[in-house]
Amino acid sequence: MTILGIDPGTARIGWSVIGGTVHSPTPYACGLVTTPKEDGKEARLTILFDSITAIIKKYTPDVASIEDLFFATNAKTAISVGEARGVILLACAKTGLPVVSYTPLAIKRTITGNGQADKKQVEKMIVQILKLKTAPKPDDVCDACAIALTHLYTNTY
Amino acid sequence: MTILGIDPGTARIGWSVIGGTVHSPTPYACGLVTTPKEDGKEARLTILFDSITAIIKKYTPDVASIEDLFFATNAKTAISVGEARGVILLACAKTGLPVVSYTPLAIKRTITGNGQADKKQVEKMIVQILKLKTAPKPDDVCDACAIALTHLYTNTY
Repeated sequence: MTILGIDPGTARIGWSVIGGTVHSPTPYACGLVTTPKEDGKEARLTILFDSITAIIKKYTPDVASIEDLFFATNAKTAISVGEARGVILLACAKTGLPVVSYTPLAIKRTITGNGQADKKQVEKMIVQILKLKTAPKPDDVCDACAIALTHLYTNTY
Repeated sequence: MTILGIDPGTARIGWSVIGGTVHSPTPYACGLVTTPKEDGKEARLTILFDSITAIIKKYTPDVASIEDLFFATNAKTAISVGEARGVILLACAKTGLPVVSYTPLAIKRTITGNGQADKKQVEKMIVQILKLKTAPKPDDVCDACAIALTHLYTNTY
């Protein structure tokens, strides 16, 4: 099973493609989609949709694993993050890719054993699990690896 | 100038197409896009994107006028509404349609002269402005007419 992990956001969207098995997960690719702040909202959503669609077509994953968001600093931020998440979900739907969602708590608990783990603990586990020399950078990409691995370990799909 | 007014939402999305001039606005069409609650989120976002795209292609408006949202009962609702708003904005971007946004306060103030007006007052003014016998139903469609007319009167585009 090949899993596309996505850490949704508005300006920086981390992604990872991880395959293999629970006992031997294999990182195939990872990266960061960025949308220029100076562009209008519609242009940024278009870049995001087209980028995620291209990643899906290139790596043909079996399932997308996306962080579920239930809170934000305020409603305006929540709506902006929702707009970005909406076009990511649409890119998956339009390419026929099933989507599963995990809460930040479930992701941290699955990867580190502790739902309240900090970024450093998550990074350390990602390095260990994927047998890397250093953690993927920036944080958004490391988080996308954690999100993909959460599905590999949970596999509710 | 032909304006597509959109009242964004998750289950019911009102739309209107209004042309003419400030002195003689003309309602061309209006309707409601509904997305079945029993469908998954991705399927509902796809219906919404495809429906808005089809409306734009059918009526070829010059601009889309969309309600701007800055608040919600909670962050979960805000993210869901944001997801729907994101695919509406993407449908506009993908068809090359410019988008303008107005806050609920600006819409009520433009249509009724009072930013705190209730639904009945907005309905009454829509009937009067568009020379209708009764207000468009349901509320979402009437709101979409108010949103399109707000742009006709404001015309910041």
